[in-house]
Amino acid sequence: MSKEVREEGQSHGKDYVDPPPAPLIDVTELKRWSFYRALIAEFIATLLFLYVTVATVVGELKQTIDCNGVGRLGIAWAFGGMIFILVYCTAGISGGHINPAVTFGLFLARKVSLIRAVAYMVAQCLGAICGVGLVKAFMKHDYNHVGGGANSVSAGYSKGAALGAEIIGTFVLVYTVFSATDPKRNARDSYVPVLAPLPIGFAVFMVHLATIPITGTGINPARSFGAAVIYNNGKVWDDHWIFWVGPFIGALAAAAYHQYILRAAAIKALGSFRSNRSN
Amino acid sequence: MSKEVREEGQSHGKDYVDPPPAPLIDVTELKRWSFYRALIAEFIATLLFLYVTVATVVGELKQTIDCNGVGRLGIAWAFGGMIFILVYCTAGISGGHINPAVTFGLFLARKVSLIRAVAYMVAQCLGAICGVGLVKAFMKHDYNHVGGGANSVSAGYSKGAALGAEIIGTFVLVYTVFSATDPKRNARDSYVPVLAPLPIGFAVFMVHLATIPITGTGINPARSFGAAVIYNNGKVWDDHWIFWVGPFIGALAAAAYHQYILRAAAIKALGSFRSNRSN
Amino acid sequence: MSKEVREEGQSHGKDYVDPPPAPLIDVTELKRWSFYRALIAEFIATLLFLYVTVATVVGELKQTIDCNGVGRLGIAWAFGGMIFILVYCTAGISGGHINPAVTFGLFLARKVSLIRAVAYMVAQCLGAICGVGLVKAFMKHDYNHVGGGANSVSAGYSKGAALGAEIIGTFVLVYTVFSATDPKRNARDSYVPVLAPLPIGFAVFMVHLATIPITGTGINPARSFGAAVIYNNGKVWDDHWIFWVGPFIGALAAAAYHQYILRAAAIKALGSFRSNRSN
Amino acid sequence: MSKEVREEGQSHGKDYVDPPPAPLIDVTELKRWSFYRALIAEFIATLLFLYVTVATVVGELKQTIDCNGVGRLGIAWAFGGMIFILVYCTAGISGGHINPAVTFGLFLARKVSLIRAVAYMVAQCLGAICGVGLVKAFMKHDYNHVGGGANSVSAGYSKGAALGAEIIGTFVLVYTVFSATDPKRNARDSYVPVLAPLPIGFAVFMVHLATIPITGTGINPARSFGAAVIYNNGKVWDDHWIFWVGPFIGALAAAAYHQYILRAAAIKALGSFRSNRSN
Repeated sequence: MSKEVREEGQSHGKDYVDPPPAPLIDVTELKRWSFYRALIAEFIATLLFLYVTVATVVGELKQTIDCNGVGRLGIAWAFGGMIFILVYCTAGISGGHINPAVTFGLFLARKVSLIRAVAYMVAQCLGAICGVGLVKAFMKHDYNHVGGGANSVSAGYSKGAALGAEIIGTFVLVYTVFSATDPKRNARDSYVPVLAPLPIGFAVFMVHLATIPITGTGINPARSFGAAVIYNNGKVWDDHWIFWVGPFIGALAAAAYHQYILRAAAIKALGSFRSNRSN
Repeated sequence: MSKEVREEGQSHGKDYVDPPPAPLIDVTELKRWSFYRALIAEFIATLLFLYVTVATVVGELKQTIDCNGVGRLGIAWAFGGMIFILVYCTAGISGGHINPAVTFGLFLARKVSLIRAVAYMVAQCLGAICGVGLVKAFMKHDYNHVGGGANSVSAGYSKGAALGAEIIGTFVLVYTVFSATDPKRNARDSYVPVLAPLPIGFAVFMVHLATIPITGTGINPARSFGAAVIYNNGKVWDDHWIFWVGPFIGALAAAAYHQYILRAAAIKALGSFRSNRSN
Repeated sequence: MSKEVREEGQSHGKDYVDPPPAPLIDVTELKRWSFYRALIAEFIATLLFLYVTVATVVGELKQTIDCNGVGRLGIAWAFGGMIFILVYCTAGISGGHINPAVTFGLFLARKVSLIRAVAYMVAQCLGAICGVGLVKAFMKHDYNHVGGGANSVSAGYSKGAALGAEIIGTFVLVYTVFSATDPKRNARDSYVPVLAPLPIGFAVFMVHLATIPITGTGINPARSFGAAVIYNNGKVWDDHWIFWVGPFIGALAAAAYHQYILRAAAIKALGSFRSNRSN
Repeated sequence: MSKEVREEGQSHGKDYVDPPPAPLIDVTELKRWSFYRALIAEFIATLLFLYVTVATVVGELKQTIDCNGVGRLGIAWAFGGMIFILVYCTAGISGGHINPAVTFGLFLARKVSLIRAVAYMVAQCLGAICGVGLVKAFMKHDYNHVGGGANSVSAGYSKGAALGAEIIGTFVLVYTVFSATDPKRNARDSYVPVLAPLPIGFAVFMVHLATIPITGTGINPARSFGAAVIYNNGKVWDDHWIFWVGPFIGALAAAAYHQYILRAAAIKALGSFRSNRSN
């Protein structure tokens, strides 16, 4: 029986053994085509993400008087659904971050190098700018009228509330990302299927349902930055720091929660599991 | 051929043999880090559940005059979608209960010890209070205005109807939980994939569609308790017992249905399957 | 290599070989507990299906003037989502029909015996009556006011259009059921995962989006019958035959399409695949 | 260990080795029943796609004054959800294209022959015409009133914007199709499950959320053509070229992106993986 169990471990557990921490700076990475391919994939994915979502926002907001639009529910679906399909499409190429906060969280957990993290963030921000730029080009008469999909602190909310909402919202997202991509997951709970992209997309959907009324929901600095660059109304920059600081704190909290609370014991459990297996 | 079939049974069926019933009181549990880690995971998950869902409710209800909100459909999605991602994230850590009625049902089925059941319920209630507290802190000007997401018997409905709605609603949820986590499931119907978190989340979504008009939908005593503690309007406590008694009766009924009707024969079928395998 | 491929065929293909056609009448079935367990599961599932969906309809329709409801979209989700979770929960117990038209289609394909088909339909109709009865008991002041969730031909549509809509709608559902449960599916297209309950639920969701304006959408005679029995307004029986004849014709068409068009060649392909394997 | 890894590669990787490019013209294909079966499946699937989606559009648009309809969100779900279930049902029979742009993209990638591509497109267009024809037959009094679900450039948008929206929208869809059906996917990223039909359906859903306000969303020439043929209002043909040229350019771009950017390195990585395996 131990043989079959081991085979089971093998066949589902190619990612079973934790990879060593990514080096902070890995110059050889710069020589590989797969590195630039990953940057292109992050650029295109973030472009498509912003294009679809901001077009949905602009198409919706221009008609506040009737009920024909997709509603705020449709906007939340656009953000969550795009993350679902884009993580699905890019996971094998770049890891499917599409969000500097996710990249930051995975960097903190030493899953990507510093060079890769910085390069991803640049590619994501450029992609976001181009995606919103396309929306402005296609829908220009409505685009400026409805605020260009930019994030800001809604009337009646304090900056502290907005920052808190961004922190917790990003925590939900990055916690889901860590849970969904945990290499030990398969070994630990075989009955929980690893459908990584779907719950990650749902996490984005959920946070938008909750916090669109507060900040429009950032939880993705590239999304906030791209919309701000193209809209470029002075006021939009006033609170822009919230949409970088909040998501980065949220990602830090999620990484710490996963690594120090949830994984701490997982490592021990793994130890005992391994010793069982070597019997 | 029998060899491969057996290997198949092994490789998909690590959970195949029913674990022995959990002891009522297991003191050694208290010495393991995994026990406290599970409590933390239940606390955080219930906190995030209440934060996102009650923020969605408050953000929606403040604008009853126009149609821009997420609607009652969006509220139902918030509850169901959060359960999907949180069960997904915590299943391997704590079993992913996030609901005292689920814990109660699994305790009745002897899947968790009494000590664990009580500790989970306390962690869930504390998490719920903190989650709603965060919503009140962030959205205070709207929070009290719209009833704070607390459950109550809607005008025009009797207490009996409300209790019945809570019982059947929780039955739907806990029945789905039992079906999704049945260790014999894989062996019995290999063509039904075990995507446990998604149907569990959908069960919560469905019950909210049906019973928000009646009680606002509890089916989770921690959710009802956390909202009541923070809102703390005298009237909210009047019918509060319904949101404990109803879910616990529903969980009891689902546990009995699963164990005495559905599983009764499964055990027999298993017996014959086993004797086939030993040929 | 052929060895591993064969093992692959085995490990995913337990259902690979077509079972022999079910006998028309199998008296030994009546002696097994699993037969009665299946009837109980069909009864309970159809009860829960009608309870949740009709409660959603009644809760929605009572407030046509504002925008707070779940909308027709929410109603469509209730029907589709309940079928998703109930097929998921009962697939291993009864096959997860929850619909006399599905039972009829599977009987035509000789997957269930005549005795089982008739007994299922009776259990489904009784469950539907009880489910709608619970809604009437809980929501009685609104129930009659909004038509009790009964199906009828909407103003402005002919009986022929209604019958056609029921036929095609049921075709979509039963075609999906056949596709999702085809025992040869795994062997034939390994890259298409067998997530049977989700697409079946979506099929119901889709048909409701399209045909609620025409008939309220039946595509399930037990659903139409249960609602008609409890509402029992004379007018509701006038066109009731449409909600039996339409679904049964649609199921017949789907069964014929699957067995004579789609499976015809599958059997041949299987033949060649088998001869390859025996090399 | 290398043995188990190899078995793993085999058991999940039946599609692992790239099939050779499909011949441009393969006359033997015309002699096989599976070819005609695939044409029938494409015809029926496109018929059902147009029937359900256009019925949803017509049922929705006839009541613009109240809020009881499914909304533009429901329309977007109808398009995306139908693609999900129809790809699921037909993937094993015809590959599940249901869209000439998808067929064109897969032809460019040499996954289908020229003969098959042309025959599929004819079957899809005929199916679309029949599907819209059924809607007109059933709902004739509303059908013409609301524009028959035909695509056109909305007031306030330029032809360039419409063309751009069709190009990018189809790019999102065909990029997802390539990602979901990549035969190397399993080998490359074992943690990303291959749930092909669901993300493909979501891609269609997402694009509809974003571009219904611009063109009504084509991204499927058969859908646009079928609706135009049955509606046949002179004006609908004026911009009809956009709904062929746009999707075909989008499919070309997605095929090029996948084959020359994303797959380029995959082939190299595969090479190194293979040499590892042969150790």
